[in-house]
Amino acid sequence: VGVSVRVAAGETVEAGSARDRKGSEIEFSRVVAFSDGVFAIAITLLVLALEIPAGLDDLGKAIGDRGDEFFAYGLSFAVIGSLWIAHHRFFANLARFDGPLMVLNLVYLAFVALIPFSSSLLGSYAGETPAVITYAINMVAVSLVFTAQNVYAYRSDLLDEAAEARRAGPLVAESFVIPGVFAASIPLAIVSPDNTPYLWLLMPILLRYFGAKHPGR
Amino acid sequence: VGVSVRVAAGETVEAGSARDRKGSEIEFSRVVAFSDGVFAIAITLLVLALEIPAGLDDLGKAIGDRGDEFFAYGLSFAVIGSLWIAHHRFFANLARFDGPLMVLNLVYLAFVALIPFSSSLLGSYAGETPAVITYAINMVAVSLVFTAQNVYAYRSDLLDEAAEARRAGPLVAESFVIPGVFAASIPLAIVSPDNTPYLWLLMPILLRYFGAKHPGR
Amino acid sequence: VGVSVRVAAGETVEAGSARDRKGSEIEFSRVVAFSDGVFAIAITLLVLALEIPAGLDDLGKAIGDRGDEFFAYGLSFAVIGSLWIAHHRFFANLARFDGPLMVLNLVYLAFVALIPFSSSLLGSYAGETPAVITYAINMVAVSLVFTAQNVYAYRSDLLDEAAEARRAGPLVAESFVIPGVFAASIPLAIVSPDNTPYLWLLMPILLRYFGAKHPGR
Amino acid sequence: VGVSVRVAAGETVEAGSARDRKGSEIEFSRVVAFSDGVFAIAITLLVLALEIPAGLDDLGKAIGDRGDEFFAYGLSFAVIGSLWIAHHRFFANLARFDGPLMVLNLVYLAFVALIPFSSSLLGSYAGETPAVITYAINMVAVSLVFTAQNVYAYRSDLLDEAAEARRAGPLVAESFVIPGVFAASIPLAIVSPDNTPYLWLLMPILLRYFGAKHPGR
Repeated sequence: VGVSVRVAAGETVEAGSARDRKGSEIEFSRVVAFSDGVFAIAITLLVLALEIPAGLDDLGKAIGDRGDEFFAYGLSFAVIGSLWIAHHRFFANLARFDGPLMVLNLVYLAFVALIPFSSSLLGSYAGETPAVITYAINMVAVSLVFTAQNVYAYRSDLLDEAAEARRAGPLVAESFVIPGVFAASIPLAIVSPDNTPYLWLLMPILLRYFGAKHPGR
Repeated sequence: VGVSVRVAAGETVEAGSARDRKGSEIEFSRVVAFSDGVFAIAITLLVLALEIPAGLDDLGKAIGDRGDEFFAYGLSFAVIGSLWIAHHRFFANLARFDGPLMVLNLVYLAFVALIPFSSSLLGSYAGETPAVITYAINMVAVSLVFTAQNVYAYRSDLLDEAAEARRAGPLVAESFVIPGVFAASIPLAIVSPDNTPYLWLLMPILLRYFGAKHPGR
Repeated sequence: VGVSVRVAAGETVEAGSARDRKGSEIEFSRVVAFSDGVFAIAITLLVLALEIPAGLDDLGKAIGDRGDEFFAYGLSFAVIGSLWIAHHRFFANLARFDGPLMVLNLVYLAFVALIPFSSSLLGSYAGETPAVITYAINMVAVSLVFTAQNVYAYRSDLLDEAAEARRAGPLVAESFVIPGVFAASIPLAIVSPDNTPYLWLLMPILLRYFGAKHPGR
Repeated sequence: VGVSVRVAAGETVEAGSARDRKGSEIEFSRVVAFSDGVFAIAITLLVLALEIPAGLDDLGKAIGDRGDEFFAYGLSFAVIGSLWIAHHRFFANLARFDGPLMVLNLVYLAFVALIPFSSSLLGSYAGETPAVITYAINMVAVSLVFTAQNVYAYRSDLLDEAAEARRAGPLVAESFVIPGVFAASIPLAIVSPDNTPYLWLLMPILLRYFGAKHPGR
């Protein structure tokens, strides 16, 4: 990581060193393609957690007992898919990018790539506090780093002008509601780990409620 | 998923909010690239189901005994490949896309990414009813969601005009023949799980027969 | 597969139905991106065959004993890399593509995606006849299907005109030398499985020799 | 590999045979996409080393005991991410590319794709000399081959003119500091394998120090 920071610093000797998207479309699209690759691989690796060993006596029962694993698969597919759509939208609104944003993006992807691990625990150890907390922490981390990317891009003036005005409302809602709900679910996971994942399913409703309050939209 | 729906809804305040493909080629190509990534990873992960542990006494026999696994590999490679070609064709015919279509596409990909799991069961538990039914259900789900994508795109006027006229015939044939045959194979799998996969191999012939009846082609 | 053949057939009612590359650059690039994805995933999955379980007493010895696995990794990385370069070159020379070529390409990719399996056997069962024969058969299959793609593209007039003249020589050399050497190595693997992989390493020299005889280059 | 070398040789009969980037953007972008694919897959496969088996009695303890595995995950994610950024930068500075550079790039990718293996050893066998040495050797190899790519591109005049002048300083620093530190850590790993990874964490500081001495930047 240091390498990239240093180099980015080397490139920022002159003002206005952030690369313009139009002038370096190939390089910009490589960042996008790399991110998409990580998203696509992470989302497809989720299936490995469903694996059923060969040679069982009662396959029907084994499949029936996988309810928690299928739930974790569906939940995590929806989560990574939503993260990807949000990332897609964020990058579509960038007018420029620079070294620090690339580093933030890598940290972000490191937490995205961790989701198959957290998801596999959530499936195999459904209803156990450490599994639920691990998943919640993974979500808090991924959403906070995404917020950091958004804030950095906004402060460093990397966003499209039209996008900047448009995004203020949703940014606030998503940036605080998502990590907030997952952080709040950590103590809940100690008391009632079985029910915590159902709380997460309320996220779309909460987001709609808080998002709707912003007149800027 | 909720996130994306909400945002898409936010963007659809004005009429005609579906993004035009020409005006947002980069964003369009990201959806395509992400989908292709999931297809390519799912199709390549099929090989993991063939794994032979190290240290066996008689490797020749172990490879010979893998007939069912190789059959499942070939079948599923053909299935995912066909799905990808159909998806490729569908996206080539889109003039516009919007938020709900992206969500449908993610649900579709969730069932595509499940195929390595179903395929691995079909190989390891060849001739067992639960394995055959799991595979058939996976196929029904994937083809119904694909039909939903097609119907949605048609109703929301997202298709190319030329494509719209051209596709009516094959759409009807594929949309009902494929899920219909797989659904019909579920009761068959209870009676004769050994023979059910051979029925699936008749799919191309059935499609050709029903497809040919449509004068619109 | 049937689906695509049928559709391709449906589209070839009129003459000249092969899609021109220039006029459908996005669709062409999807085929390329999908193929590249399969190559990149297959080449990266090779590393899974090196896995060393946790908790061994003598890790140094375990790594030292992996010589055959590292050899198989290096060989297969070079093989898939070479196949990718050849595929890259082949697609760069295409002026048009059509449905049957896409189906041939999928069959080709099915054998490419099988290489991590064959390679893992070659590493774990080094010097055993069934492992060496499996690898050789995989190579014969992959090179014959690639030859079929080349021949089909040539006969169906899908190649660039300049490319067509230029490629005649190398095509003949590669099309017969590579599958020929691998096919010839199958009986050798019965007599001397230990030495067969070294024969394969002579391939570049053989190719240079036969390739050089063609005056067309 | 031989195949590609031969073909590249075939193409270099006339002087100036390196392909110009502008004139073959699609082919250039395939090399980039393939490399990005390998990077993205290798970085995402790191998560497999964290796997916790199902059915343990005390999941909380098992997660707590994974400190070394999480450290290896974070370190290797940062390493592959930095390598990718450097590769990204290198390719952004290329004006042309040719066959030998593609072969060097494949050898480079073979060592990148090996990192999940080395990283998994570093996590499972933390503090054991063979694991630390394996990781260090992997890093020496990857950085030396990257230096070779840089030197080859510079000598064969494949770089952008502006890039050439700009890069001299950092090239020297990175080319010798990174492999040097990793090579120097090999004897240290014999004496104190526990502490060696912490030395690696000093890399960004060392690079900044040596990089800063070059007036050319």
